[in-house]
Amino acid sequence: MPECDGTADFALHPALARDALFIDKWSVCQLLLMNDSRYPWLILVPERVGLRDLDDLTIEESRGVWDDMALASRLLRTLYQPDKINVAALGNMVPQLHIHVIARFRGDDAWPHPVWGQHPSRPYAETDLQVLRNKITLFAGRIC
Amino acid sequence: MPECDGTADFALHPALARDALFIDKWSVCQLLLMNDSRYPWLILVPERVGLRDLDDLTIEESRGVWDDMALASRLLRTLYQPDKINVAALGNMVPQLHIHVIARFRGDDAWPHPVWGQHPSRPYAETDLQVLRNKITLFAGRIC
Repeated sequence: MPECDGTADFALHPALARDALFIDKWSVCQLLLMNDSRYPWLILVPERVGLRDLDDLTIEESRGVWDDMALASRLLRTLYQPDKINVAALGNMVPQLHIHVIARFRGDDAWPHPVWGQHPSRPYAETDLQVLRNKITLFAGRIC
Repeated sequence: MPECDGTADFALHPALARDALFIDKWSVCQLLLMNDSRYPWLILVPERVGLRDLDDLTIEESRGVWDDMALASRLLRTLYQPDKINVAALGNMVPQLHIHVIARFRGDDAWPHPVWGQHPSRPYAETDLQVLRNKITLFAGRIC
């Protein structure tokens, strides 16, 4: 029997499934890793059908999304010691609500500009990806 | 006697004071209007000294910021009927935590790209600014 909370029919937008890698399921979001080794770049996708903007979330969902965003920020801070964390929900090209959480460094390829549209993606090597995936999963497991 | 919650010594970063106009004080944020008539563009600045990233907020502050973000989104939606709302906390150039809430339209000057760094600002005419400031204040007063 289908669930009534909108998660039963949830499917990741094809562009997110193409450009990012599924890492884990957190409190209300899927955690993805953008397949671009230029920047440590996580994406959170709340698992509910039809969400477009942050203010489409219910109060309860918004608290879960905030917790996931804070956890993603802490994870990037711990693993990379970045100079800044960029958080953004844009969605002009991919309308499904997704939240970017990006570790930024003075001197990274796009600094001080936002990362979008600056450079073509540089996909991870398969071995680096495996190591990173394990690190992220371990980190989240340790503090959840 | 100074307050102990970090608001007593709060001062807006000079770049925000230069590029945006103070409109109102909301639950935990100053509401600013970016002085760029290309896009309806609000900026929320939580009034606490030393904040840099979203995850620097306490749980309580984060709920107030979320409420302000949702109110700013609703305001832009009501006044402009945009195609999308962009929300972002970047801060690579201006380190004081500030959250952009921007109404976006298919066909606006930067669409579908993010607005930052695309075009020079086009300041509002003084009369338009006065009308807009009144509209925003009225809207917020009606639904708060």
